[in-house]
Amino acid sequence: MSPRIVQVRERILKHNDELARGMRRDFAAAGVFVVNLVSGPGAGKTELLTRTLSALLPDYRCAAVVGDLATENDARRLATSGAPVKQILTGTMCHLEADMVRQAIAGWDLAELDFLFIENVGNLVCPSSWDLGEDLRVLLFAVTEGEDKPLKYPTLIHTADIVVVNKMDLAAAVGFDLEAAMNNIQAARPGVETLRVSARSGMGLEQWLAYLKHRFAEKRDSAAQLSTAGA
Amino acid sequence: MSPRIVQVRERILKHNDELARGMRRDFAAAGVFVVNLVSGPGAGKTELLTRTLSALLPDYRCAAVVGDLATENDARRLATSGAPVKQILTGTMCHLEADMVRQAIAGWDLAELDFLFIENVGNLVCPSSWDLGEDLRVLLFAVTEGEDKPLKYPTLIHTADIVVVNKMDLAAAVGFDLEAAMNNIQAARPGVETLRVSARSGMGLEQWLAYLKHRFAEKRDSAAQLSTAGA
Repeated sequence: MSPRIVQVRERILKHNDELARGMRRDFAAAGVFVVNLVSGPGAGKTELLTRTLSALLPDYRCAAVVGDLATENDARRLATSGAPVKQILTGTMCHLEADMVRQAIAGWDLAELDFLFIENVGNLVCPSSWDLGEDLRVLLFAVTEGEDKPLKYPTLIHTADIVVVNKMDLAAAVGFDLEAAMNNIQAARPGVETLRVSARSGMGLEQWLAYLKHRFAEKRDSAAQLSTAGA
Repeated sequence: MSPRIVQVRERILKHNDELARGMRRDFAAAGVFVVNLVSGPGAGKTELLTRTLSALLPDYRCAAVVGDLATENDARRLATSGAPVKQILTGTMCHLEADMVRQAIAGWDLAELDFLFIENVGNLVCPSSWDLGEDLRVLLFAVTEGEDKPLKYPTLIHTADIVVVNKMDLAAAVGFDLEAAMNNIQAARPGVETLRVSARSGMGLEQWLAYLKHRFAEKRDSAAQLSTAGA
């Protein structure tokens, strides 16, 4: 890349970072836990999120925004859960930016939410640089993508808080080598947390939901402690 | 995107287009047919290309370059075919650019080649804007990605010459709706040619190879006619 475009890109990224920091403060003040789901195209973000929303909704107030270049397909699928959903259309853009999320949620009262899920554009490279103010960045791999993606696409795994391996129900059919995949994940990002699920069969979803609830409670507790300490 | 970054990006793209045009002239002069393979991560570009190289090599002189952010895994896999292969490491870049290809092939005598294959970075968005001087842009979808990717990622399909649906051996296991997928492909890009293959099982590879050979012969014939007309 030319020094010129690097320079301009860095200014844009810096602006995004500042905006995302402000959003993170707003999310914290409202007590909403924000999850950014990233993966390549077709790894199963929408299916996992639809099931997650359905499972959480009886006990938690949830909403979702979803980014795609075109179509409202994913928003329609997510809305079947009963949660409020907004589609962000990015046109030719390969990732979501903080300002797109800010505009999409502008009409929502964040204090009325426990969880806000952001489903990013399907892309294993570009979303890595764009902070959306989230509390948790979840990177989804699908067994159908093969075992070596963590090594070949290092930028996104470097910024992820947890790696979820999806479509485990297809592992045998595609000859997926789970041990090799897990070794590659740990080689790319030593110590990163991992979960194995099948959004379709339901395998591992209990652990996934427990993880989300735990992270949500942790944030609430630390906010409560801070407010007690300040009182 | 800010007007400033759009402006700088357009200048970079224009420079890439000029370089690609020059490369296309060089490829034509040398009589090499150049194929740019694009898809999301894990759709099976490397597997299809390895089998393609092995099948063509007895009768055609082939070489390949492959782009990844990190690792030489794909170059190693492709080299098992016996073809000369160069790995391009893009670092944090989400696509190949003409200049990366130019540098990678600098040591090769193009006149000694019939086919040059370029395997792009796995990304369904970004490679669309970057002309590599190729004769043929092949867009690969995998049945494991679902039926709606042609609609959700329109930019790449708009620039593709042919759409190849891969992993057909897994269609039943993932409940792939072929008719819906084909309708979506035609809706996104009316009239575009399509093929259905399984690089793993070998299904459809005969048609794929016949298509490549036909396109190669077409280019040779039209070059011969031009040179006769000019004589």
